[in-house]
Amino acid sequence: MSLIVQKYGGTSMGSPERIREVARRIQRFVREGHQLVVVPSAMSGETNRLLALAKELNPDPGPRELDVIAATGEQVSIGLLSLALQALGVKAKSYTGWQVPIVTDDAFTKARILSIEEKHVRADLAAGNVAIVAGFQGIDARGNITTLGRGGSDTTGVAMAAALKADECQIYTDVDGVYTADPRIVPDARRLATITFEEMLEAASLGSKVLQIRSVEFAGKYKVKLRVLSSFTDVSSTDMGTLITFEEDESMEQAIISNVAHNRDEAKITVLGVPDRPGIAFSILGPVADANIDVDMIIQNASTEGLTDFSFTVHRNEFKRAMDILQNQVKGAIGAKGIVGDDRIAKVSIVGIGMRTHAGIASKMFGALAKEGINIQMISTSEIKTSVVVDEKYMELAVRVLHKTFELEKDPTEERMKA
Amino acid sequence: MSLIVQKYGGTSMGSPERIREVARRIQRFVREGHQLVVVPSAMSGETNRLLALAKELNPDPGPRELDVIAATGEQVSIGLLSLALQALGVKAKSYTGWQVPIVTDDAFTKARILSIEEKHVRADLAAGNVAIVAGFQGIDARGNITTLGRGGSDTTGVAMAAALKADECQIYTDVDGVYTADPRIVPDARRLATITFEEMLEAASLGSKVLQIRSVEFAGKYKVKLRVLSSFTDVSSTDMGTLITFEEDESMEQAIISNVAHNRDEAKITVLGVPDRPGIAFSILGPVADANIDVDMIIQNASTEGLTDFSFTVHRNEFKRAMDILQNQVKGAIGAKGIVGDDRIAKVSIVGIGMRTHAGIASKMFGALAKEGINIQMISTSEIKTSVVVDEKYMELAVRVLHKTFELEKDPTEERMKA
Repeated sequence: MSLIVQKYGGTSMGSPERIREVARRIQRFVREGHQLVVVPSAMSGETNRLLALAKELNPDPGPRELDVIAATGEQVSIGLLSLALQALGVKAKSYTGWQVPIVTDDAFTKARILSIEEKHVRADLAAGNVAIVAGFQGIDARGNITTLGRGGSDTTGVAMAAALKADECQIYTDVDGVYTADPRIVPDARRLATITFEEMLEAASLGSKVLQIRSVEFAGKYKVKLRVLSSFTDVSSTDMGTLITFEEDESMEQAIISNVAHNRDEAKITVLGVPDRPGIAFSILGPVADANIDVDMIIQNASTEGLTDFSFTVHRNEFKRAMDILQNQVKGAIGAKGIVGDDRIAKVSIVGIGMRTHAGIASKMFGALAKEGINIQMISTSEIKTSVVVDEKYMELAVRVLHKTFELEKDPTEERMKA
Repeated sequence: MSLIVQKYGGTSMGSPERIREVARRIQRFVREGHQLVVVPSAMSGETNRLLALAKELNPDPGPRELDVIAATGEQVSIGLLSLALQALGVKAKSYTGWQVPIVTDDAFTKARILSIEEKHVRADLAAGNVAIVAGFQGIDARGNITTLGRGGSDTTGVAMAAALKADECQIYTDVDGVYTADPRIVPDARRLATITFEEMLEAASLGSKVLQIRSVEFAGKYKVKLRVLSSFTDVSSTDMGTLITFEEDESMEQAIISNVAHNRDEAKITVLGVPDRPGIAFSILGPVADANIDVDMIIQNASTEGLTDFSFTVHRNEFKRAMDILQNQVKGAIGAKGIVGDDRIAKVSIVGIGMRTHAGIASKMFGALAKEGINIQMISTSEIKTSVVVDEKYMELAVRVLHKTFELEKDPTEERMKA
């Protein structure tokens, strides 16, 4: 008997018929003798509907009240899923965030989980119940309702698994695992049976929408065995999706590069002709950070005649705000020659723990892109990934070229077996 | 400066535009220097939408989970109304039932309020906030979400007023007060400026939908000054609706009869040829009560040759269940000759504290109905009301005849002033 946490996304909970499917899947695991904690998201579209209502009443809604409103989506889901299970004769009991309780900080709309009291849920599991815990929400120290931000239900699932020391946390979504690239761009993209935790973390931060990055961090911190599966396969399917592993095991599928990620949510800003003196990066990025705008890539060129160019990327939604700040608060203050921006860019990345031990991977990437005439605007590297910024119109081509270059369509396990 | 509790019904909260209207009304009171606690219902249609979803997943839904689901309607309302107030520059903070907390018993879907902790709300009022408290919901001693049953937001409003010792509890609804009869039936029905608490209690129990009966009981127990007003009049209107009073003041409008009530939600059941022996009423009504079916009027005729007929009324929705119980569990056990039922009846009542001191009111009522050829099937009386059951098809006629007979279209205050 295992203790399994299952998280179901909004599309999995999208209609009464879909909720019944989820209930039947849970029933199968219960019949197999497992203890289950289930974390559903709000029905798809519900959170957007609620936020649209809020914005109609207040274009600049206060975050505390936004969370009061948004949290109802998951509260409806836990009730409905519990009822669907009861209709199948499966004992189930729902928990809101405050009923668990899942204690967070007070950063409304993007709160972080501080602690989880697991004793009530554990008592219900011992009594033979499936525990249905609302995703996305918590309670702060003063009793306010908080939410964890978009995709926060993934984090709830992983955090519950960590608190309960569950054997596995299964994330059911509308894709059946993690792929070597987006199959909509690369038709022969291959599903990975396993991916290392570090690769998953990079992939999530680079634009993979499969898992919320914070949930992956959480899984890493608490060593939660995490698996991504599809809730759209047949209920009795034994397909096991993609497992996120912690050990680099020789027996496991092991490619140098595991996947190609892409992201067109960013915009690039360059501050031209900046006097090259200490503290200049802070002078430029300080006001941007003060406005709560996250910066991703940062590049400063070598200086020529005491002047340098300073480039960075921000989320495309923040592009206009960031440009305004630079024009109005930064440009004059630091004596820059100009500010130029481009929101028609894309970031394409290769990810793989093999990069640690194999030289020349980055230059192979640059060579492949050059051969297709794709100009590289920015480069950023870490131990296990290399990202480039290119013109948005070349994004799909770049992803396909890199997938081909690193032969990701081939299953390395099979290759080894043939050898 | 007064402390006022305002309750707004579902139609008052029916759309973003309506919610903005409610916010503007609250703003007016705040500008006049009052402290406000506001209790909104769910947006009209929302509770039904949620319960329909629940029933689709489970035709016989467990009450605990139903309450988890239903409570979200009011949670959305408190958030939206708070945001609408903030948009007007009015400081507002929302409270769910468990955040107040409003502690109830654990009778899910029809819980009763046991206690209210008012200190957090009071502190927020002192800090200059309008407190927006979710109607209809509470929390039981074990931390489960409960709801108070249909119309429960009225009770929340009155209970908050009692706990805070508010100067007045204003119930905003889609009618502008309590009338001498339903204006849809009696065109010259007149709005009452005041009605005594006892009359309001009778009217509510007799089918007036203006206030939930439990809220009136609560107001009586804690001497809450209660006022019914329309949220559809202009925001700046000084119309004061109908005040429910506790003193029978000579200076106040004082008619013998204050209103004619009607109700077609009941059905009549008669057990024929019952042996007239001690305990027979219990033998008949015990199984009905065990099935949680409320009985309203009960009549037992004088016996003839040791046999009697026993009649009672139940809610029309429970008619079939009650008939089944009597046919299958009661008839044989007590040796009754037969069971007959009729769900095409209506109850018409006259209500007035003047009945205490004026003789002949009931006979005047019976005479007026007889003159119109309306047969009376059952009669029930209390100190300040007389109810009759008639064929449903005569209901409107009976209401109009009684309204005319007791001259309810005339304002007694004006009559006195003319004299």
